[in-house]
Amino acid sequence: MTIRVGILGYGNLGKGVESAIGQNPDMKLAAVFTRRVPEKLQIRTKGVSVLPADELQRLQEEIDVLIICGGSATDLPEQTPKFASLFNVVDSFDTHAKIPEHFAAVDAAAQKGGKVSIISCGWDPGMFSLNRLYANVILPQGHDYTFWGRGVSQGHSDAIRRIPGVKDARQYTIPVPEAVEAVRSGLNPELSTRQKHTRECFVVACEGADLAAIEREIKTMPNYFADYDTTVHFISEEELARDHKGLPHGGSVIRTGETGMDGEHKHVIEYRLALDSNPEFTGAVLAAYARAAFRMNQEGIKGCKTVFDIAPAYLSAKNGAELRKQLL
Amino acid sequence: MTIRVGILGYGNLGKGVESAIGQNPDMKLAAVFTRRVPEKLQIRTKGVSVLPADELQRLQEEIDVLIICGGSATDLPEQTPKFASLFNVVDSFDTHAKIPEHFAAVDAAAQKGGKVSIISCGWDPGMFSLNRLYANVILPQGHDYTFWGRGVSQGHSDAIRRIPGVKDARQYTIPVPEAVEAVRSGLNPELSTRQKHTRECFVVACEGADLAAIEREIKTMPNYFADYDTTVHFISEEELARDHKGLPHGGSVIRTGETGMDGEHKHVIEYRLALDSNPEFTGAVLAAYARAAFRMNQEGIKGCKTVFDIAPAYLSAKNGAELRKQLL
Repeated sequence: MTIRVGILGYGNLGKGVESAIGQNPDMKLAAVFTRRVPEKLQIRTKGVSVLPADELQRLQEEIDVLIICGGSATDLPEQTPKFASLFNVVDSFDTHAKIPEHFAAVDAAAQKGGKVSIISCGWDPGMFSLNRLYANVILPQGHDYTFWGRGVSQGHSDAIRRIPGVKDARQYTIPVPEAVEAVRSGLNPELSTRQKHTRECFVVACEGADLAAIEREIKTMPNYFADYDTTVHFISEEELARDHKGLPHGGSVIRTGETGMDGEHKHVIEYRLALDSNPEFTGAVLAAYARAAFRMNQEGIKGCKTVFDIAPAYLSAKNGAELRKQLL
Repeated sequence: MTIRVGILGYGNLGKGVESAIGQNPDMKLAAVFTRRVPEKLQIRTKGVSVLPADELQRLQEEIDVLIICGGSATDLPEQTPKFASLFNVVDSFDTHAKIPEHFAAVDAAAQKGGKVSIISCGWDPGMFSLNRLYANVILPQGHDYTFWGRGVSQGHSDAIRRIPGVKDARQYTIPVPEAVEAVRSGLNPELSTRQKHTRECFVVACEGADLAAIEREIKTMPNYFADYDTTVHFISEEELARDHKGLPHGGSVIRTGETGMDGEHKHVIEYRLALDSNPEFTGAVLAAYARAAFRMNQEGIKGCKTVFDIAPAYLSAKNGAELRKQLL
């Protein structure tokens, strides 16, 4: 049986989900839904319709799981609870402080509709969260570290673009190699924000802009840059398009801990991602969890879930005997 | 509520479980069971009884989960099915080819007794298996690699000890650094057995033994050494005791894969362990899964499970809201 997946929102993440569905033979893309004018959207999967988001309500019978690919700031808090009573849904909500609130709203809707919702999927939150959990239960005495990058931070790139005189920008978050090595070697260093990551900015300035002023404004920007060692490079529009068009990312979750009656043995657990495309990898995680949402709901399960609540076997198209034989 | 854990078998793994229980405030060691003479066993947790294995049957009310710490060759195939109808049990069965058979026998007993059994826990099978599964569902188009070590292989050490003229031995499995780097860099190399790992042996020979003959016998031993580049060092008993008394291990599970409509973006997922004590880390994994077995059974779940069937949240003493707030 093929799982019919709908995508709501066709930005970078929606496109990532689209290509992930193409790699999973047990899934097919049912339709893409958009708040833009559907006729203006050209999607890459042949023979699949682009429909206005308003039509979703009447397509309950055609879609097994809806993957909601909006932003966490304003889209998902509205869209996920709205559709969670009508469809099994998956989202990538990542505003950490608001997860309890989002969970409660989505759970109420999913319970009411008898559907499964999985929120906050992706790699962080998502695979990194899972690895924090697994490592913490195995090594209750220990230290957690998360390093992000080398990768493009869209939030930081946007913050630079808002500075007057900036035409375009790309910001890379970079873990400090010495800090990563100190953690891996089990030294359990106490690391300040500045000691963990550096920030590298590639900026296209408007003609005649005051470059020194832009650089100063970036480096002193509170929350975003002031606490980091930041490097600023001014480059041309052509260089930005040529060298910085990708959206790579990644990072490491590391837990170091002790076992033994006197904590005499040290252990290091590391989960590391090196991703050429952040939205495509995130889309691939969402697609796997869409399978889980569908299969759990087939078994009569309902309500809001996170990656913590999903038995890994639900993520795979293989049955239990195949998994035990091939992957255990 | 404190989870009362029993340990059956007090070798290296049983001791590892004992120290893990001491690190988990929601668990307590109820008793250690042995097939040896209990009076001769000195355990390290104060005030806990050592009892003959035969007494287990009459202690169903005193033990919430039994962690069975026997060997996979002969102990577990007999013990786990035997106790799975009486207790929630956890084992570390690792004879890969016989997992389907073991699963069936344990499942029948657990279903009959209304208990939860979790088999094949630890790090491989166990955490490595989980990481193979997660990485495969995210990147359906890709390649899997597992490297073991640098660490002590007990099976290979035992094989050397069986050679006439050998008094004692310790064997290290070592990943070939160039192979690991080639995999990490996304080259997807095809690697032979010899290209993936080397083997290093530290051997204490009996007085007057023919060292050249021992070395030849090791290096040509089928399955164990013949397919590897093997180094043999003859050392004294004192050196073995001084430099090789630990049981370190570890390794990496790596999956490299492609996403995008044309597979144009590459990704690397790596899960890496560096362990000072293989049995203590394995024991720590078993303890976490013991919590899951107990909690699942409390909810009315029964039957045989593997790491694939356990929602991660069951492993933690924290509730869903705490996990979402602290680890998601």
